[in-house]
Amino acid sequence: MAPGRVIYVATSNMHKVEEINAVLQECGYRVEPIDAPKLEIQGDLKRVALYAAATAYSIVGKPVLVEDAGLFIEALRGFPGPYSSYVYKTIGIDGILRLMKGVDNRRAYFYSVIALAYGGGLALFEGRCDGYIADGPRGDKGFGFDPIFIPEGDNRTFAEMDVEEKNKYSHRARAARALCSWLERNQQVLTS
Amino acid sequence: MAPGRVIYVATSNMHKVEEINAVLQECGYRVEPIDAPKLEIQGDLKRVALYAAATAYSIVGKPVLVEDAGLFIEALRGFPGPYSSYVYKTIGIDGILRLMKGVDNRRAYFYSVIALAYGGGLALFEGRCDGYIADGPRGDKGFGFDPIFIPEGDNRTFAEMDVEEKNKYSHRARAARALCSWLERNQQVLTS
Repeated sequence: MAPGRVIYVATSNMHKVEEINAVLQECGYRVEPIDAPKLEIQGDLKRVALYAAATAYSIVGKPVLVEDAGLFIEALRGFPGPYSSYVYKTIGIDGILRLMKGVDNRRAYFYSVIALAYGGGLALFEGRCDGYIADGPRGDKGFGFDPIFIPEGDNRTFAEMDVEEKNKYSHRARAARALCSWLERNQQVLTS
Repeated sequence: MAPGRVIYVATSNMHKVEEINAVLQECGYRVEPIDAPKLEIQGDLKRVALYAAATAYSIVGKPVLVEDAGLFIEALRGFPGPYSSYVYKTIGIDGILRLMKGVDNRRAYFYSVIALAYGGGLALFEGRCDGYIADGPRGDKGFGFDPIFIPEGDNRTFAEMDVEEKNKYSHRARAARALCSWLERNQQVLTS
């Protein structure tokens, strides 16, 4: 088990855990998944994450993170947005490519929010990564819509990158870095 | 204003109000929209409706209904399902038709749940309408995905039918009829 102070994270997605930990090790923390009830309301990702973190904390009673993310495609009015994981499980990558067939505007962004609930309240961290929807899936790393997302500044998809490479660009790593600097400034808060 | 005992309904969708009232008048009730906070969790429609009704009742303090519905398309693994109104507002009817282009299996169903929260607890009513996704939109009545849904037993879409005709088939009318018979058996509960 890696060293570092532990913060629980209410997720069963080990890809997310790995990506967040690759960043958090830089500030001496690590997340550990916890099987907490994660009550997700409908709405924008900030509301979803804050509500889920608050309810998880009310049960766990220890500092706990919720990370929620979505892919927002400009030509589809932000679809699949907050419901990206549901859309991934139903129409999937193939469905997104069908919807984008012949569409010139491929602009999209991934957006991540991390909500931290602890004895002192709630803190929210955001990260965004602009890029493009690929014409077809490429790569087998990462998860979700990674095979069809190309971040600005590269020509590979997220699924063609290792965690370290993806983290140079990714929405989730950016949110985790914001969390890192908050943790460095607020260590007392979590340990007291 | 129509006669009948009033039950509040947490919605701003006047189409829903009209469709439900066309059924409820048969048992001497009518719904009136109320601007109650409607906290919608993510999940299947039963959980969504029960939770939203319970939270609305905790604030309104009077019997209140929540109706939630979705279109479940077999070939799309149930998509758009519980997130039908979000999907309608983003990729819309055009997006569904793109996803269904060249797909032979057009089977789909509309599913409605009505949750009633009152002093005695929560009661849930369901209605389902099986049918097919049309090749293109037809009609300008109704709302949402009505122009592309053809109920079994007819060859018109919901959007080509008046409320009375749609209610012969519709998921929402079926749920409302179940509510009606419950109300007839439980009048004391709501008035006391």
